Amino acid sequence: MRRLASLLPILDWAPRYTRTDGVNDLFAAVIVTIMLVPQSLAYAMLAGLPPVVGLYASILPLVAYALFGTSRTLAVGPVAVVSLMTAAAVAPIAVAGSAAYVTAAVTLAFLSGLVLLAMAVLRLGFLANFLSHPVISGFITASGILIAASQLKHILGIRAEGDTLPRILVELAQGLGGANLPTLAIGVAATGFLFWARRSLKALLLRAGLGRRLADLLAKAGPLAAIILSILAVVLMGLDRAGVRIVGEIPAGLPPFAVPSFDPALWVALLPAAVLISLVGFVESVSVAQTLAAKRRQRIVANQELVGLGTANLASAISGGYPVTGGFARSVVNFDAGAATPLAGAATALGILGATLFLTPLFRYLPQAVLAATIIVAVLSLVDLAAIRRTWTYSRADFAAMAATILLVLLVGVEAGIVAGVALSLLLFLWRTSTPHMAIVGQVPGTEHFRNVDRHAVITEPAILSLRVDESLYFANARYLEDRIYAEAAARPALQHVILMCPAVNLIDASALESLEAIADRLQAAGVGFHLSEVKGPVMDALKRSDFFEHFKGRVFLSQFEAVQALVREPRPKAPGPAADR
Amino acid sequence: MRRLASLLPILDWAPRYTRTDGVNDLFAAVIVTIMLVPQSLAYAMLAGLPPVVGLYASILPLVAYALFGTSRTLAVGPVAVVSLMTAAAVAPIAVAGSAAYVTAAVTLAFLSGLVLLAMAVLRLGFLANFLSHPVISGFITASGILIAASQLKHILGIRAEGDTLPRILVELAQGLGGANLPTLAIGVAATGFLFWARRSLKALLLRAGLGRRLADLLAKAGPLAAIILSILAVVLMGLDRAGVRIVGEIPAGLPPFAVPSFDPALWVALLPAAVLISLVGFVESVSVAQTLAAKRRQRIVANQELVGLGTANLASAISGGYPVTGGFARSVVNFDAGAATPLAGAATALGILGATLFLTPLFRYLPQAVLAATIIVAVLSLVDLAAIRRTWTYSRADFAAMAATILLVLLVGVEAGIVAGVALSLLLFLWRTSTPHMAIVGQVPGTEHFRNVDRHAVITEPAILSLRVDESLYFANARYLEDRIYAEAAARPALQHVILMCPAVNLIDASALESLEAIADRLQAAGVGFHLSEVKGPVMDALKRSDFFEHFKGRVFLSQFEAVQALVREPRPKAPGPAADR
Repeated sequence: MRRLASLLPILDWAPRYTRTDGVNDLFAAVIVTIMLVPQSLAYAMLAGLPPVVGLYASILPLVAYALFGTSRTLAVGPVAVVSLMTAAAVAPIAVAGSAAYVTAAVTLAFLSGLVLLAMAVLRLGFLANFLSHPVISGFITASGILIAASQLKHILGIRAEGDTLPRILVELAQGLGGANLPTLAIGVAATGFLFWARRSLKALLLRAGLGRRLADLLAKAGPLAAIILSILAVVLMGLDRAGVRIVGEIPAGLPPFAVPSFDPALWVALLPAAVLISLVGFVESVSVAQTLAAKRRQRIVANQELVGLGTANLASAISGGYPVTGGFARSVVNFDAGAATPLAGAATALGILGATLFLTPLFRYLPQAVLAATIIVAVLSLVDLAAIRRTWTYSRADFAAMAATILLVLLVGVEAGIVAGVALSLLLFLWRTSTPHMAIVGQVPGTEHFRNVDRHAVITEPAILSLRVDESLYFANARYLEDRIYAEAAARPALQHVILMCPAVNLIDASALESLEAIADRLQAAGVGFHLSEVKGPVMDALKRSDFFEHFKGRVFLSQFEAVQALVREPRPKAPGPAADR
Repeated sequence: MRRLASLLPILDWAPRYTRTDGVNDLFAAVIVTIMLVPQSLAYAMLAGLPPVVGLYASILPLVAYALFGTSRTLAVGPVAVVSLMTAAAVAPIAVAGSAAYVTAAVTLAFLSGLVLLAMAVLRLGFLANFLSHPVISGFITASGILIAASQLKHILGIRAEGDTLPRILVELAQGLGGANLPTLAIGVAATGFLFWARRSLKALLLRAGLGRRLADLLAKAGPLAAIILSILAVVLMGLDRAGVRIVGEIPAGLPPFAVPSFDPALWVALLPAAVLISLVGFVESVSVAQTLAAKRRQRIVANQELVGLGTANLASAISGGYPVTGGFARSVVNFDAGAATPLAGAATALGILGATLFLTPLFRYLPQAVLAATIIVAVLSLVDLAAIRRTWTYSRADFAAMAATILLVLLVGVEAGIVAGVALSLLLFLWRTSTPHMAIVGQVPGTEHFRNVDRHAVITEPAILSLRVDESLYFANARYLEDRIYAEAAARPALQHVILMCPAVNLIDASALESLEAIADRLQAAGVGFHLSEVKGPVMDALKRSDFFEHFKGRVFLSQFEAVQALVREPRPKAPGPAADR
């Protein structure tokens, strides 16, 4: 039963569901629905898909996550970054707007679901930890800038194809003369209104005496208001005949039962993108879920989240949707609106289903510029320039990974950016550990402590070199260790013993083991003893498993103090004992 | 002058050159020439190139390395593994034996030279450290097996195209019936003779009373003897008309002045292979050079070795050769024969030049089976099965990287193998450090030491949790640290302080910094103080550079003892002081 409950978190909260929970969930669902309808249409457009696909992706996935996810308040659905990644993955494979394009996006959701479930089975949730904070932060900031720039064409009412920042800017500059003025007017008005609604509307409504809940509801309805007003404007003024591009016919009805493609060539082509989308979506989603869970002292189980998101993506695929994940803004809204259980998500799904069944004919005259405005306002809140400065101040290595991510996302594309960022952060970590900090240490007078000779006034013995290495020993730094010890030994003609002090060595891998053997052999050939001190328990256990001690002629001391005490006397010949004569 | 000498190591040894050095160098050159001529022909065949290309690659490159390399005894030229990698890189681009194939190989040498020189300029010699010992060892063993298997077709006198072990074995099994018996006889005889010569000939000659030097010379001439005898057999018995495949016409004369292709598409296609060949060649070469230098207390400068090998490859490219590097067997032979300076290498180059000018007509009737036998005997000495067992015993993670390398080299190809091995060893290292060892510690009675509560009888305070983390804190383990601390804190209702003891923390990156801030915030919200102890100097310096201490409410203690002493009293309200009343 416990095991079942961990697979189906609903069994945990459903039995204790109260009437208050129900009211809270319902209210949150209404707000999130109002927010999600325009976003779903907009993000589908960003992904190069018909807008209705965004609605499809906001129904079944929410139900699936409500059943299998561990967050009480996470709101899944189409999100900006994943939509951009979907466009980047599918665009080289099929023509935007074609049936093949939709099939590829559906297949991408299916593959992404399989990847997430495979990660859950193999317990690979930890892989998400390899995306460092600076890389994620840089990736999201750059994606936000790229997405906002890519939407400006809709505001200007021009056609453009660029998918990198320089090309987008060039196309915008070239197309500026051909801008459609009614489109521009609607776009600018909508963008301005949405920024204002996001920033000031709630405070205004509160000041006007509205209750907190109603003010919240109305403020979140900003995008919906923009949509309704712009549709009215188009219909009443016939703006579509004046060149304002509209969404056009949207099929009403239940989400279709879709079948992903099983073409092996398509799978191979989409798999790398599916892996990246899964990782990025997982990281984004888990970060949001953990932040919110921490506020209410709830727990997120990373591996179960993989199941929740995996089934959500499979659900999206079989109902004609595209890759989904937990979104930041909508989850915060859901949380703030008081959502108590995943039932809020299920209720939201019903709300979107209602919109899909009954409201789609209304969206026909919705200007694309208004959807673009929705996207721009949403993604610019993702841009975090302060984080760039903060990272620069703290660590140049972290900044390098972040800068590489940002530049490559803007100049080459999202996939290149994230891959380069991850690769660079891994390489930089290895590079940092490949030249470990090593200190020659001496005894602090009157104590058993040994400290760096460069930082403290300590006692050293000319015949003994005490070297502390402040890093695990492994292939990337094994040769450096050898070189350093040879160099130190060569500079000390009176040397009789080298003691490697290992309190910070958490691991010695096979490469480093060979280096230690080489060091011992070479120092022995030069008449110098080689010893270890303060080797940690687990490291010692591993050494004992190998044949290291069959060759090792040196000694292993529990403490550096003990080592120096023992060795300082060792080379001296023992004084002949006169005791017997007396 | 010093700077010039470090760029041109010849300035270091030439002024002190003696007559004895000259005799030693000349003797070594004769032996290495005798060994290198058949090997050069054979490895060129292994690379899918006309045999004479192997000779070209053994002239100018040796001179270039003698000028720029730092090893006194390294012998560069075509080697087995690099030849195999050349074949793997060029075969998909051009038909074996065609002029385009030779041009591609020449271009590969040129690119490899540029990559090595670029690494020298950017001081990227440390990149070679990312190839761990188990991966290199597994790679060389698997390459040896693959190469030996690939040469069996020449011994059987059948045609085969397979380049993976399963395909090679299937083709050999299918072709067994069509084996050419005279070829088989020559091949088996040559292989047997070469194994015997390598293992027993020198001892036999010494027992027969020959001097050490002469015995050495004759033993190393085994391959040359096999070549001469087999040529005689072919000519005298007309075996080429009986189906024994021979080397055929070899153009005599100076190496041609060759120009690599500057076709950008070819460069792009060859660049990944050039990088891999450079790295593998560099690692192999530096390992050999360092082993030999250590025996004579000489020094190898890794970055200058990049220059030496880079110019050697450029020299190979402009003289119609293919990628070269320092070879293990021939360098040992050079060393054992008494080579004193790089002049031995230059003299070897003259020897090979002589062979190219005057002996090539003789090689016309050389059976390919004998070259194959030369290769098989040479590469099987690279196979080190004991290393596999040793690695298995010491570390499953290292073994996994090694096994992946071996299996992929055999089943997919050399490039896939080395890339997978490197990637896996990096990932495994990250995985090991992503779940760091953490210990709850307590005070050893009567001392200031704190040890693991699970391993020692120590004193703990219920209000204080002392947690020692035995790893640098960075993105891959930041979340693990958070989870662990939250879990420990949740299990201790009486907890008032958490002290994170950091003596083994050598680095805190930006991701871990954010986690520490999150931990501090969250514990504070739960009424628990969060403190650090024994933070290392460099780590503390980095923390001070950030804004960490602007938010951090806890304290940082120099020692864990101090921390517990201070905190154990802190939560208790101070007893009202009655001193004034008295």
